[in-house]
Amino acid sequence: MSQITCEPFPSAKKIYVSGTQYPDIKVPMREIALTDGTTFTVYDTSGPYTDPDAKTKIDPRQGLKPIRHQWIVDRNDTEEYAGRINTPQDDGYSSIDKMSAQHAKLNASGLKRQPRRTITGKGATQLYYARQGIITPEMEFVAIRENMRRQQLREQFADQERDQRLRGENFGAAIPATVTPEFVRDEVARGRAIIPVNINHPECEPMIIGRNFLVKINANIGNSAITSSIEEEVEKMVWATRWGADAVMDLSTGKDIHTTRDFILRNCPVPIGTVPIYQALEKAGGVAEDLTWEIFRDTLIEQAEQGVDYFTIHAGVLLRYVPMTVKRVTGIVSRGGSIMAKWCIAHHQENFLYTHFAEICEIMRAYDVSFSLGDGLRPGSVADANDEAQFAELATQGELNQIAWQHDVQVMNEGPGHIPMHMIKENMEKQLDLCKEAPFYTLGPLTTDIAPGYDHITSGIGAAMIGWYGCAMLCYVTPKEHLGLPNKHDVKTGIITYKIAAHAADVAKGHPAARYWDDALSQARFSFRWQDQFNLSLDPETALAFHDETLPKDAAKVAHFCSMCGPKFCSMKITQDVREYAEKGMAQKSAEFKQRGAELYVETESSVS
Amino acid sequence: MSQITCEPFPSAKKIYVSGTQYPDIKVPMREIALTDGTTFTVYDTSGPYTDPDAKTKIDPRQGLKPIRHQWIVDRNDTEEYAGRINTPQDDGYSSIDKMSAQHAKLNASGLKRQPRRTITGKGATQLYYARQGIITPEMEFVAIRENMRRQQLREQFADQERDQRLRGENFGAAIPATVTPEFVRDEVARGRAIIPVNINHPECEPMIIGRNFLVKINANIGNSAITSSIEEEVEKMVWATRWGADAVMDLSTGKDIHTTRDFILRNCPVPIGTVPIYQALEKAGGVAEDLTWEIFRDTLIEQAEQGVDYFTIHAGVLLRYVPMTVKRVTGIVSRGGSIMAKWCIAHHQENFLYTHFAEICEIMRAYDVSFSLGDGLRPGSVADANDEAQFAELATQGELNQIAWQHDVQVMNEGPGHIPMHMIKENMEKQLDLCKEAPFYTLGPLTTDIAPGYDHITSGIGAAMIGWYGCAMLCYVTPKEHLGLPNKHDVKTGIITYKIAAHAADVAKGHPAARYWDDALSQARFSFRWQDQFNLSLDPETALAFHDETLPKDAAKVAHFCSMCGPKFCSMKITQDVREYAEKGMAQKSAEFKQRGAELYVETESSVS
Repeated sequence: MSQITCEPFPSAKKIYVSGTQYPDIKVPMREIALTDGTTFTVYDTSGPYTDPDAKTKIDPRQGLKPIRHQWIVDRNDTEEYAGRINTPQDDGYSSIDKMSAQHAKLNASGLKRQPRRTITGKGATQLYYARQGIITPEMEFVAIRENMRRQQLREQFADQERDQRLRGENFGAAIPATVTPEFVRDEVARGRAIIPVNINHPECEPMIIGRNFLVKINANIGNSAITSSIEEEVEKMVWATRWGADAVMDLSTGKDIHTTRDFILRNCPVPIGTVPIYQALEKAGGVAEDLTWEIFRDTLIEQAEQGVDYFTIHAGVLLRYVPMTVKRVTGIVSRGGSIMAKWCIAHHQENFLYTHFAEICEIMRAYDVSFSLGDGLRPGSVADANDEAQFAELATQGELNQIAWQHDVQVMNEGPGHIPMHMIKENMEKQLDLCKEAPFYTLGPLTTDIAPGYDHITSGIGAAMIGWYGCAMLCYVTPKEHLGLPNKHDVKTGIITYKIAAHAADVAKGHPAARYWDDALSQARFSFRWQDQFNLSLDPETALAFHDETLPKDAAKVAHFCSMCGPKFCSMKITQDVREYAEKGMAQKSAEFKQRGAELYVETESSVS
Repeated sequence: MSQITCEPFPSAKKIYVSGTQYPDIKVPMREIALTDGTTFTVYDTSGPYTDPDAKTKIDPRQGLKPIRHQWIVDRNDTEEYAGRINTPQDDGYSSIDKMSAQHAKLNASGLKRQPRRTITGKGATQLYYARQGIITPEMEFVAIRENMRRQQLREQFADQERDQRLRGENFGAAIPATVTPEFVRDEVARGRAIIPVNINHPECEPMIIGRNFLVKINANIGNSAITSSIEEEVEKMVWATRWGADAVMDLSTGKDIHTTRDFILRNCPVPIGTVPIYQALEKAGGVAEDLTWEIFRDTLIEQAEQGVDYFTIHAGVLLRYVPMTVKRVTGIVSRGGSIMAKWCIAHHQENFLYTHFAEICEIMRAYDVSFSLGDGLRPGSVADANDEAQFAELATQGELNQIAWQHDVQVMNEGPGHIPMHMIKENMEKQLDLCKEAPFYTLGPLTTDIAPGYDHITSGIGAAMIGWYGCAMLCYVTPKEHLGLPNKHDVKTGIITYKIAAHAADVAKGHPAARYWDDALSQARFSFRWQDQFNLSLDPETALAFHDETLPKDAAKVAHFCSMCGPKFCSMKITQDVREYAEKGMAQKSAEFKQRGAELYVETESSVS
């Protein structure tokens, strides 16, 4: 357990809000106690790991409590079955003898589960239920979660005049004042939002991705070169969700990936996504040309049974689009995209993900895996932004969305990449149009290429903007992008950067629950409630540490000044003097003054007019 | 010298381009040698410190070579004079006996200069000359500097089809294909750009601030609590300009500020700005109410004689605006603004900076100090963005601009602050309108308040956007903002973040010399020229260090793969295979394929249609 970060956040308490239609659902939130006696509630992605009560029961060798299990069983549309037989090849080994110690660990643990699938003839996806007019527990869960007790926030913070002035611009989104379960159902039914929850990932706390909800962020993790323990692999995921990852993609390659995926899924409170072509390529010995539909299909089923919630599928990389990339500055930069491009040209055949798309839909429907339709031809430099290849693939993504929807499979579309600021909006507009408002999920975009080592920032700028324009989920970029593998510090930096981008987007869109967080922190700042300022921040420990660097004493945490200006120059302190003065009649004096108008200055200084 | 960073950048050479009208001017640029035998030239703010030839001659006790001295003398409109007598109070001491060792160091050095001022009846500002139709050496200098050898870049990188697709959006700016000295003169004459160069700062390499030029960034420095040496103070400025600060504000307060300012100015290759009210307040014993016009006037002359290039003057904080801040969440957050607000209400008189504005103009004209008209009522939280107080002051800034221009004084306007994304554009539009296109100079703006510890990022997002919309200079924010005093690492992080914002803005505006830098780096990336990728980046040492962390061997610097995907999965490598294949006839095959159209897929998989 020592390797898994389980500390609660400072002055924060995990609370659980119950449902109305489903009273047994417990929606987690983080309640921060402030020093003025009030509390502030924020969205919480960290799962039971930050709950001191749950913490004692957490055992990564047993996995998290499968909170959705009974909901799924109660729907009576799925069945347990024997499942596919796990082979040594799943973990990258040629025979059972060579399988690593990881496999033994998995078998010795309590992590093995019997897989479920939809009973033939039944529908079990969230999209299926939404279309039937049925509100699932998952839908009520996300409705409560998205609301973040906003009624209470409104009572605490609303100021009509101010709210009117700050009203957001949402570019045609339809964000409701309050999220109801029925609103969630309707958005899922329209395909404007997805709830990525595989029936084999009952440990997942449901979340929703769509432009009428809070902007979400995705963090990527991968296996280590030398994998030492279950705890170490689980910790990467726990670390990412602790700092705010709404979803996590496991991009592991190489040895032990099947077993590691089991470790992660059984312990993961957020949706997990993968790119199945990576594992399929491993099974094909790393040779793109040797990939077959059969290998890919087997991999899809393998991962769906384990509980992966969304698959990146590069079905839009069509043979005829490949030559469009030849004149680019950076060609094809998506791994999946380049693998499929190579396969297509080697065989001179159409992409088998495209030709077998309906069959893929059938498999994903059986487990309620959502599509994250890959953008294999995304630009890898601002020079290649918004070009023919990119938009040709986007149009194909739009066609594929329709097919997914025909099969009751939830779908979102992946987007770029590297896009200069003035070309970002076109991406969002084209996606909304071509993909009929399915959620957009972009990587950044990076707004310039000149800062390797700082691409969390070059991309955070673009991410904030596209989130504002309507992008539903932002895939993070770490400082190591283009240079190396991120360590824990890099992962955290990437996540905090993207939480900033997502929240800045929510504020600009005028999300009704978003700006109160800024207001709460600003009030704390103005009242010199230093501890509250730290505790309300996205990263309380860094805020505190930075303050300690200059003014380490405890007394400084209640001081009515700070290190930047010192006591004499503190503008906030002076403002409070001004305010006090104003309350003693300043307003009246000023009104008199105003009436007399500008003549006063003219009298004093004739050249000022 | 050991404390001053003088290393040249890796594989980079300082070059100097001569003028045509003024053949003796030498405009510095950084030429980066690439491993493919070509070179790439970038803008260089680092002064002689990164020039190995000049380095040996640098002695911070003698100051930099006064490159502008002869230009100024040749204009025959200024005279040396005895100057104001330096008093112990200038350095915060009550008597000469108590003056610190700093003063002795200054006197022992060769840094003392005789001040110059404009001869009565003459005009010596860049604005005066521009209006006379005269191109000064400073104007030709900035024209060459802004061009950054763009003709050569165009020949090297231009691709008509691509350039057409990526054409920027500049919101009505008038960026020329090539910057001529005459264009510079005209922009200065119109008040749309300023060249902040005090006649007493001859060491300064001229630069221009205006929305039809490259977006600039400003870094703030301040004195240390315990000042140990001239070198230490000079190093802060050198460090900031090394990483790209186009201008530096010295926000020092407390003891020894006059002497420290001499240290900095005599060694500084970029314009230096100050907020004179800070020092004036020191002279008034730290009591805002005790400030007088006489103290302030004396301070202006003191700093103008030293060579400060631009003054922040909070003349727009009018008495009648102060009550408008009372209902704000964060009141007045500008130090200067709150000092003046307090003075106004304590005396119930109009701001003396406003009533004496014409006199201030006269003083600043005598030395060619530019105005940076302060925004003392800028919002300190997104809750207060774009409110009545903020825009009332902006309108007054616009009036004051007119007065400055009447006096031939160059002027730019300071702007916010904390603004959510959807309200940023309104700031730029209002400033262009009310201030008649004078350069705008904003602090961020921060787009959310929830991330203390990461406000370089919350503000970098807003800075990139407002730079795109037309802001001419971006004042950086470090990670320590709101929490503590920045160390060297924080200063560098803030600067790199703002260089990213400024460059992303230049690219989005379609600045004709901007995007080639991205293209050069992307080409290096795609060709696996790792060293070139590092050397072309804003921060070569961090890029290299990050790469070393995962793949430390020298061989990896020429490897055709990287640590992120390894050799099997490298999409760039695969693309190069694809490209090779394509060159062998792929295009033709694909054309055949295209002709046959979509039927192929329909035959194979009927449900995909």
